[in-house]
Amino acid sequence: MSENSTELVSQLIHFLEEQQSEELLLAIEQHHPAELGRLIESLPNKYRQTFWELIPVKDKGEVLLAVHRELRLSLINITSEADLLKSLSTLQMDELADIDADLPLPVVTAMVEAMDSQRKARYQTVKDFPDNTAGGLMDTDATAVRKDVSLKAVYRYLCKLRKKEGMLPEQLDHLVVVDRNNQVKGILHLSDLVSWDNSLSVSDVMKDDVPLIDSLLSASQVAQIFEDHDLTSAPVVDQNKRLLGRITVDDVIDVLKHNAEQRLLAQAGLNNELDMFAPIAHISLNRAIWLGTNLITAFVAAWVIGLFESSIEQLVALAVLMPVVASMGGITGSQTLTVVTRGIARDLVSGANITALTVHELKVSFINGTLWAAVVFFVAFFWYGDLKLGGVFALALFVVSLAGTVSGALIPFILKKMGIDPAIAGGVILTTITDAVGFLIFLGAATLILI
Amino acid sequence: MSENSTELVSQLIHFLEEQQSEELLLAIEQHHPAELGRLIESLPNKYRQTFWELIPVKDKGEVLLAVHRELRLSLINITSEADLLKSLSTLQMDELADIDADLPLPVVTAMVEAMDSQRKARYQTVKDFPDNTAGGLMDTDATAVRKDVSLKAVYRYLCKLRKKEGMLPEQLDHLVVVDRNNQVKGILHLSDLVSWDNSLSVSDVMKDDVPLIDSLLSASQVAQIFEDHDLTSAPVVDQNKRLLGRITVDDVIDVLKHNAEQRLLAQAGLNNELDMFAPIAHISLNRAIWLGTNLITAFVAAWVIGLFESSIEQLVALAVLMPVVASMGGITGSQTLTVVTRGIARDLVSGANITALTVHELKVSFINGTLWAAVVFFVAFFWYGDLKLGGVFALALFVVSLAGTVSGALIPFILKKMGIDPAIAGGVILTTITDAVGFLIFLGAATLILI
Repeated sequence: MSENSTELVSQLIHFLEEQQSEELLLAIEQHHPAELGRLIESLPNKYRQTFWELIPVKDKGEVLLAVHRELRLSLINITSEADLLKSLSTLQMDELADIDADLPLPVVTAMVEAMDSQRKARYQTVKDFPDNTAGGLMDTDATAVRKDVSLKAVYRYLCKLRKKEGMLPEQLDHLVVVDRNNQVKGILHLSDLVSWDNSLSVSDVMKDDVPLIDSLLSASQVAQIFEDHDLTSAPVVDQNKRLLGRITVDDVIDVLKHNAEQRLLAQAGLNNELDMFAPIAHISLNRAIWLGTNLITAFVAAWVIGLFESSIEQLVALAVLMPVVASMGGITGSQTLTVVTRGIARDLVSGANITALTVHELKVSFINGTLWAAVVFFVAFFWYGDLKLGGVFALALFVVSLAGTVSGALIPFILKKMGIDPAIAGGVILTTITDAVGFLIFLGAATLILI
Repeated sequence: MSENSTELVSQLIHFLEEQQSEELLLAIEQHHPAELGRLIESLPNKYRQTFWELIPVKDKGEVLLAVHRELRLSLINITSEADLLKSLSTLQMDELADIDADLPLPVVTAMVEAMDSQRKARYQTVKDFPDNTAGGLMDTDATAVRKDVSLKAVYRYLCKLRKKEGMLPEQLDHLVVVDRNNQVKGILHLSDLVSWDNSLSVSDVMKDDVPLIDSLLSASQVAQIFEDHDLTSAPVVDQNKRLLGRITVDDVIDVLKHNAEQRLLAQAGLNNELDMFAPIAHISLNRAIWLGTNLITAFVAAWVIGLFESSIEQLVALAVLMPVVASMGGITGSQTLTVVTRGIARDLVSGANITALTVHELKVSFINGTLWAAVVFFVAFFWYGDLKLGGVFALALFVVSLAGTVSGALIPFILKKMGIDPAIAGGVILTTITDAVGFLIFLGAATLILI
């Protein structure tokens, strides 16, 4: 947390409490809409409406884009339809398509009504693709030229386009070269356009070995292509390589941030769309599902312990030491789980190398299992003065380390095959297994050997 | 995992086993160096050297950039100095500065020797900044123009630059407008250059309200500015606003990916720089630290249990139910911990709102604590037919939920104040507290009320 934003948020809260509108307007003016979005997320609920109402209508569209969906819905709720309509006029096609599902139907209808037929057709093109595909991410403002025209003609075309539209598309760094069937033949970088003699033709300076984005690719695949090729924008094409639109790198950054956040939140069973200060009831319900799931798995572990009640009654040290076994199994397993889950997400782990990787991981936990088994043997021996108890404790810790590793390697792989995101369900399944196996091995071995 | 890459890696392993060099060379030719980097990370150790040797020298530099540091070091180890030197010639300044610490000293010396004096000075500029600052991320190939020249003169300059250097800088989408003291006055987008009449002057079409990146900003702050303003590149300046270089969005994406990965891996106590197939000894040592830390915290919990040995001997149901209490406290706490840690990372949580947020979280866990306390009361009652035991169990679960929430909210906040990354240490501290508190409350209350 930078000191600046602590001060800023404190100041805003102060202004809001004192109803100092002028200071608030000044602060709002000094910040980009995306920053305003973060500020409004930082404000507790009771201040949000006042703050929102002070934001100029022209910026509200971008603020809506920047905040989480739940907050967006509540802000839309307190905004008049006329203001909403005005605020949307600053957004790009792909941005509209991202939030239109959250808008009241009359606003969407009025928005579409106000478009000219070309924009209407473009809007429909983006709407027809799911959000998490290249088609859903793309904007429809790709600028196309033919390959047989001169660079001079391209300049003339761009000047005309600026006069007609008032501006060129944002983040324009290349033009798409198409043939008469709108099939993409290559791209013309603006940096080539401006640095070659303008009597040359487009085909002389265009690049034809550029990656084209198939409209059906997933958002994550698109992000990977951008990353591998260091792209700032790329043409989106249909299956016949006809130009549909373009994706700019800011959309890719949104995808990467969203994916990263989703993975982090998923590990605590949290829905990524929730706002920090969302209504208590919403948050409680969202978390209850995960807590309930965990309770069931905790009772599975408890049931395993229950099988050995009479052993514990005879040797209460077992109750003291058993959580250590389960915990070390869980940690060992989660280290492997993280490596394999990350490998799957980065497309590094597959059927081709999962066996080699599991064996590699097993060797690691053989070493660590041996090391920590030796340590706990001595701890238990000094604590209870019982060699046999130390031996059983060490054995159980060693076995549960190996079991955790095998589970950690195979669970994400199997989940992925079943079409389930390993980042969400992996951890809870792993812990259930390592807890149950840990208690079973330790208490089972103790019952056989010590009791 | 896409089916394609499973097949591809299997095929490569097959070719490598059968020593089919021609097929391998063909496969290598069809992939971008960044993809080759991922492929080599997917290959088990024994195949890597052969594969690496088949990659053309001109691509090796970019492959080295794409892989994790540990793998990079081992690849550098098996490459001749002459080849290394050749492979580096395709890299940009900021890329060189990223990997030069991993290169043998003679190669770095030879590389610097081969630079002309201008490149040498630029290289030194980047080297002088730490890697995780704007200065360390920047490339020194910003292209600058004066504000009083005509657009026509800019074209002439760019054509000359292309002739002199053979090419323009990669991902060039704007020129930086500077005065005679090299102070940045604004930027000229290429899209403006190409669409305005070329008799206009730079000052007529330049933008002067653009964000400049201070060379001392942290990499994360740079990423936030790029994200907020949807930038594809931006000028880097010193404290007197003099132009030092530029940052392109591909560097920002690398920062975002690196941060996201680091956070995920840190939760399992893993060092982010490790390669999946790194030597067993390295991986084992890296993980042993985390396992050892966890073992200590597990023994703290065991010690708490040990305080109540005689209670457990008298009522063995306590041993069966106690892990449930600790586990629910851990999950409740980790949900709050995740929300607050994420809020801190996104600059949404600060001293200004931490109290409001903690109260909000406590209300949530009051609801969920009550709900699940009721559930476990009935489970314990039906299992053991003991109303009082059910009551103590429910009470402990309720109290540990609140304790978990308070810990989850305050731990990351306090760690951040102490300058420790909450994403790394937060989880293990939280679990230690919820385990110890959970066992203490449950066994303590049981001892007072039931025994």
